[in-house]
Amino acid sequence: MSDPVEFYFDFSSPYAYFAAHKIDEMVEGFGREVVWKPMMLGAALKETGGLPLTQYPIKGDYCRSDWARLARFQELPWSMPANFPIATLAAARAFYWIDDQDLAKAKAFAWDCFLKFYGEGEDISSPKSVAAIAVKHGLAEDDVISAIADDTVKQRVKDETTAAVAKGVFGSPFIIVDGEQFWGADRLWMVKRWLRAGGW
Amino acid sequence: MSDPVEFYFDFSSPYAYFAAHKIDEMVEGFGREVVWKPMMLGAALKETGGLPLTQYPIKGDYCRSDWARLARFQELPWSMPANFPIATLAAARAFYWIDDQDLAKAKAFAWDCFLKFYGEGEDISSPKSVAAIAVKHGLAEDDVISAIADDTVKQRVKDETTAAVAKGVFGSPFIIVDGEQFWGADRLWMVKRWLRAGGW
Repeated sequence: MSDPVEFYFDFSSPYAYFAAHKIDEMVEGFGREVVWKPMMLGAALKETGGLPLTQYPIKGDYCRSDWARLARFQELPWSMPANFPIATLAAARAFYWIDDQDLAKAKAFAWDCFLKFYGEGEDISSPKSVAAIAVKHGLAEDDVISAIADDTVKQRVKDETTAAVAKGVFGSPFIIVDGEQFWGADRLWMVKRWLRAGGW
Repeated sequence: MSDPVEFYFDFSSPYAYFAAHKIDEMVEGFGREVVWKPMMLGAALKETGGLPLTQYPIKGDYCRSDWARLARFQELPWSMPANFPIATLAAARAFYWIDDQDLAKAKAFAWDCFLKFYGEGEDISSPKSVAAIAVKHGLAEDDVISAIADDTVKQRVKDETTAAVAKGVFGSPFIIVDGEQFWGADRLWMVKRWLRAGGW
């Protein structure tokens, strides 16, 4: 199997929700795995001087309306979270802890985090809210809460974020295949083109 | 005929080059005119606090490489201008002055400005360089130079920019159809969807 498709994102990125919905299905048939890599986008934005989208005047309003129409197009539930952006450390930590046990389960958990946050508009920043989602995937609430507070797991998210930034990730979603970078949910067509041709 | 498709851009925006190459052909068959509206993106960025793309660390490098690959995909000439971004007041003024005489000629002139700047990497900020492009479209060099210095033409570009910002334009390219906003060269598919359905 060729190198995996690396899918970097922050749970607090609506465009990641739209890309996450499509990426595994899109990559199917190309003999590649998709590796999901949640990260702390704030760390990347510090490098570039960017802001969370809703904090830009005018552009923020555009994005809110853009997210609603993209949700309609992809037939996904949409409810703009009242708290936005949020801290997504708990979700990212839980993700990597689950990922080390079962990759498919980690993706299913991550997708449910997206659905809870953007589909229902519910805040998923607290360890308790993240654990409630993990419980639906057969994990014990106490184990998840402990994992989120575990130093090794905490360090893992820091390391993954540092590694992502070192690879040039500056936004979310951000896809890297064979070293080639693709920024944004609008660029899945280009990722597909790369996979099909095996380069340019 | 239904309302026109408004195509806002700054000549100093590579993504506008890629969108300009496709937009008229894409809109053909929908019974709509495409109105090209060059503007001063700097004025819009002042409202949102954005920067020209190449001024962001990391993201700037990504964009340079993205422009080169997009040019390959669209089979367009590409030579990253040594001076970038540039002041595009002269090109915008010449555009509106020509536009008032002949819409098709103004578009052909604008496209040649894009080609000179991105295809050849030549600076097009001076009135002389802009006039040289206009001359190829049958205009007299002295007339173009005078128009660029004309107070009415100067005010026209200011007014067009103010009107664009008032309509919510915060980036380039930016398309408005029937009041619906579309930001970015990556969103032509969505404009097409709007045109086809006549709404959502």
